[in-house]
Amino acid sequence: MSANAVNLTAEPQFWWAGMHNSQLQILVYGQGIRDQKVTLTNANNIKLVSVEQTDSQNHLFINLDLAQASPQTIKLNFTQANGQTSQIDYQIKPRDTGSSDRQGFSNKDVIYLITPDRFVNGDTSNDNHPDMLETVDRANDGGRHGGDIMGIRKALPYLQDLGVTQLWINPLLENNQQHYSYHGYSTTNFYKIDPRFGSNEEYKALVDEAKNYGIGIIKDVIVNHFGSGHQWMADFPSSTWVNGQQAWQQNPKDILFTTHRRTTVQDPYTSNIDTKEFAQGWFTDTMPDMNQVDPLMATYLIQNSIWWIEYAGLSGIREDTYSYANKTFLTHWSKAIMDEYPNFNIVGEEWTSNPITVSYWQAGKQNNDGYVSYTPSMMDFPLYETLISSLTEKEKMGSGLINLYEMLANDVVYADPTQLVLFEGNHDTNRLYSLLNEDLALYKMAMAYVLTSNRIPQIFYGTEVLMTSPTKDRNDGAVRADFPGGWPNDQVNVFNQQGVTKRQKQALAFTKSLLNFRKTSTAITEGALTHYVPKDGVYVQFRQSDNQQLMVIYNKNDQPKELDLNRFKQSLANGTNINTKAVDVITSAEYQLKDTLNLKQKGVLILNISQ
Amino acid sequence: MSANAVNLTAEPQFWWAGMHNSQLQILVYGQGIRDQKVTLTNANNIKLVSVEQTDSQNHLFINLDLAQASPQTIKLNFTQANGQTSQIDYQIKPRDTGSSDRQGFSNKDVIYLITPDRFVNGDTSNDNHPDMLETVDRANDGGRHGGDIMGIRKALPYLQDLGVTQLWINPLLENNQQHYSYHGYSTTNFYKIDPRFGSNEEYKALVDEAKNYGIGIIKDVIVNHFGSGHQWMADFPSSTWVNGQQAWQQNPKDILFTTHRRTTVQDPYTSNIDTKEFAQGWFTDTMPDMNQVDPLMATYLIQNSIWWIEYAGLSGIREDTYSYANKTFLTHWSKAIMDEYPNFNIVGEEWTSNPITVSYWQAGKQNNDGYVSYTPSMMDFPLYETLISSLTEKEKMGSGLINLYEMLANDVVYADPTQLVLFEGNHDTNRLYSLLNEDLALYKMAMAYVLTSNRIPQIFYGTEVLMTSPTKDRNDGAVRADFPGGWPNDQVNVFNQQGVTKRQKQALAFTKSLLNFRKTSTAITEGALTHYVPKDGVYVQFRQSDNQQLMVIYNKNDQPKELDLNRFKQSLANGTNINTKAVDVITSAEYQLKDTLNLKQKGVLILNISQ
Repeated sequence: MSANAVNLTAEPQFWWAGMHNSQLQILVYGQGIRDQKVTLTNANNIKLVSVEQTDSQNHLFINLDLAQASPQTIKLNFTQANGQTSQIDYQIKPRDTGSSDRQGFSNKDVIYLITPDRFVNGDTSNDNHPDMLETVDRANDGGRHGGDIMGIRKALPYLQDLGVTQLWINPLLENNQQHYSYHGYSTTNFYKIDPRFGSNEEYKALVDEAKNYGIGIIKDVIVNHFGSGHQWMADFPSSTWVNGQQAWQQNPKDILFTTHRRTTVQDPYTSNIDTKEFAQGWFTDTMPDMNQVDPLMATYLIQNSIWWIEYAGLSGIREDTYSYANKTFLTHWSKAIMDEYPNFNIVGEEWTSNPITVSYWQAGKQNNDGYVSYTPSMMDFPLYETLISSLTEKEKMGSGLINLYEMLANDVVYADPTQLVLFEGNHDTNRLYSLLNEDLALYKMAMAYVLTSNRIPQIFYGTEVLMTSPTKDRNDGAVRADFPGGWPNDQVNVFNQQGVTKRQKQALAFTKSLLNFRKTSTAITEGALTHYVPKDGVYVQFRQSDNQQLMVIYNKNDQPKELDLNRFKQSLANGTNINTKAVDVITSAEYQLKDTLNLKQKGVLILNISQ
Repeated sequence: MSANAVNLTAEPQFWWAGMHNSQLQILVYGQGIRDQKVTLTNANNIKLVSVEQTDSQNHLFINLDLAQASPQTIKLNFTQANGQTSQIDYQIKPRDTGSSDRQGFSNKDVIYLITPDRFVNGDTSNDNHPDMLETVDRANDGGRHGGDIMGIRKALPYLQDLGVTQLWINPLLENNQQHYSYHGYSTTNFYKIDPRFGSNEEYKALVDEAKNYGIGIIKDVIVNHFGSGHQWMADFPSSTWVNGQQAWQQNPKDILFTTHRRTTVQDPYTSNIDTKEFAQGWFTDTMPDMNQVDPLMATYLIQNSIWWIEYAGLSGIREDTYSYANKTFLTHWSKAIMDEYPNFNIVGEEWTSNPITVSYWQAGKQNNDGYVSYTPSMMDFPLYETLISSLTEKEKMGSGLINLYEMLANDVVYADPTQLVLFEGNHDTNRLYSLLNEDLALYKMAMAYVLTSNRIPQIFYGTEVLMTSPTKDRNDGAVRADFPGGWPNDQVNVFNQQGVTKRQKQALAFTKSLLNFRKTSTAITEGALTHYVPKDGVYVQFRQSDNQQLMVIYNKNDQPKELDLNRFKQSLANGTNINTKAVDVITSAEYQLKDTLNLKQKGVLILNISQ
């Protein structure tokens, strides 16, 4: 894209020929652009379908039909009333081979979540940037610490060795906010990587390089809100761009905030005002709420998601604050992406302990109100929360492992529970090891559960080395602490093992063993699940594929325990007697399973059963 | 039925011509009966289909086809090898007119639950009975107190005046157990009312008389277990009559008790042993678990339920410990009853706080595993538990009324949430008034919620006069205390208002007003529900039928509260302004609703809105 005469920008800045959806809408921004005449030149088989104006003088929406277009560069010409013209050279690129068939993240993967500002500072020269308001301040746990894309690139060998196969990276787009911008959820430019993280080209290079390590990249997308530092807030593309726009324009203090009452958009008895106050309220005063009912905004967001998949070569999207966006839009957004990339994957965040509420949003769910989604996956907050509580509660009739067992019976509400993403923690939750009272045995049980479950597993950076946090309330800054070794002169360095404790090494070794075993374990990635009611603090699950059987035994007792294996005959015995070999997946110790099995004290035993 | 020569009993003791299911299976019990030859005489158009023997010498199952039969009395002849014969005169009766079309309890009803031993002792002469082991002991809160059917009959004018239209009476069948028999859940004779409650004829007379008061009778049925005092335990009808039968016969201490893990029979990942240990375990050592997989047992139970409906003229069944019975049997049992009486109603007890678990058992539910039920209603334990907690919890982001609001969004999992029975308490829960900290305002809110909900409401005897109990753990004896005035010389007597406190009178008046208003309120019995997110301790629901609108306002604040009515415009305003009359359903006070409404301190306001 290049523009002359006046300062013009076009979003998306380029597009591709041969997309499933051949319609393209370009948002042009420039002084007085609305009232200029648009023509197309140098265009082969590209139709100018229409030009849409809003009440903004400085925005214009150009609709093109690319159905017959080959890759080419066209000219968008803008003519003022006085005859002055300006131009944009607009590129229609060729698609990468196999782009539409790309495989999204799946049960074969393990997702590793990175908060990029806090992982590895691979390029200290971009810690600050002249155009960006907030500067680096590592002493402030709510400030920017300097982690970046280059840091993630440098960590790729470590991540490959660890055994993860997908990276979900918290948002990397420009967040040019005055304060508290490091988390990335206040987008100020939807088409530009924040220069303190790197550039669009570096992001694409990361994706390309990660592929060589067998690792895919999942983009953190927010279609609900953006950052108040976006130029839109000074010059809205339309009067309906943002919910509560007029009220805010009249008085920036008159913001209607979201009620966070997420059931209002599913509840069969809901009132209009409650759905509005949930879905149209702002997330915070620095996060205005986008009005996806405006078709121009909807198209903008849909194209933006597709642009990044196509441009960078992504293997997935994690969609933030899922239910907070307009639900009809979410149908269109998810359908557009999945139509474009049928094997892609999207995971939505619906933070609730109620599986019914989560299930509403998953593709394939037969909702009573007829609502349809095309988003294949959702984050499994209900199972995550129950996992933590079940490991820390006392074992009683109604508490402890039984709750973990019983939560799985709720899988019936999901269109496909195996497509959910189960996690041991994320950037919004307190650290796993801390929540489990720094008990390494419980830690191993939790990791084993997540990594052997009939879900798509996701772990959070640093969990593998027992990163800690406070455990009560929210502690975002502490939870998203710097990864040890990510900064020059870090005293503890996970990459070269300097200063790493024995416990950390144990945790790392355990996690690494399991992650790498998992890669070729069909029992985990595609096997059927059978589980047994927890008894006396012991919970047993079996995973069974055509060619592999795993027995996963969780023992919450402080003491060793003799386990009567006859209880598991349905899974273990071909005939009437149990007599089979098994190998401990972590230690490679061999077992001959007969009537009883002596369990060590608290921990998890993952047995690969000979068949 | 009459038998000569040897002591023979037949169950059912008679049957009817013209039933939907024309097959009848008669269980004959008598010394050595198995090996006797069975013939039929005096039979017109009745076929002896087959005779089924088991390994019990003293039981015999006779299958008759009554498809073409008119009412008549036939002779069942039994001939021993030595030629000796005995006979049973077996009556095929005419059905009452309209029997199959009877209307079961519905949303138009209010169900009043009575624990008969504890309600009214209408006949002190039957407090003890020579054939019955346990005698009256009113000082023992786990003993028999003497309440009976005659007592309920005497209370019918009171109950009609109160405004209830259905009585669910805890089991009345013979419970000839050594101890702790008053509750009635240990059946020792499936075809006989316990003589300490009355007789079969008195039960039928109660049903007939109650009809004159506009009141139907719901039978408490238990198909999961029976009483260890039943003669079956001394002489089993078959070797497969009871689960764990052989183990118990070898050693009565070797009882496998139910695990109470109810999800095991729904869980998609369940193991066989877990479903077995739940559904086939005994409830207690005095409550053996019936094996409904035995087709003879299944038929016995199905016929028994139908016999009582037809004999006594029932309008409903409440089925105890629903999920504990074999689930395939439950399909057949519920289908057989609903096939016989298409407008009948059955409500099952599934005691869990999880709506998903409850929803599995309701007729019309599309279960993932294909399981089908014909039971129209289930007890709404999840909503009951949330009602209590929401009223007593502090109002915060995630506690208080918001939980009550959000629980209703879970209605999407039910085939028909309006067919669920919502209660304020039952014989197994602690007393409402006590659970609400003896706060009359909270009490009124709870009663209003139950009685104006989109459910079938059920109240527990004595709640209308604020009966109390401890609030922690189970307190069955205290919860099921004697109704004041039910015994001669009671110091407090609700029937004549002697000794009744002012508070009790207030509660009674409130409940009575609402119950009687409800009878003709189409908004409550068939209206649509719209509700609004609770704000500042105020929760508002609207019920709207074609010709009536109710606004129900719950104010949990200790202080008066000005309510902005503009928030409810969707429900209240035809145009842009709110200007409508309304009448307080309880006090008849008139309101002119405009922009605001001044609420009194804590309580509920039920407004009948002019349309």
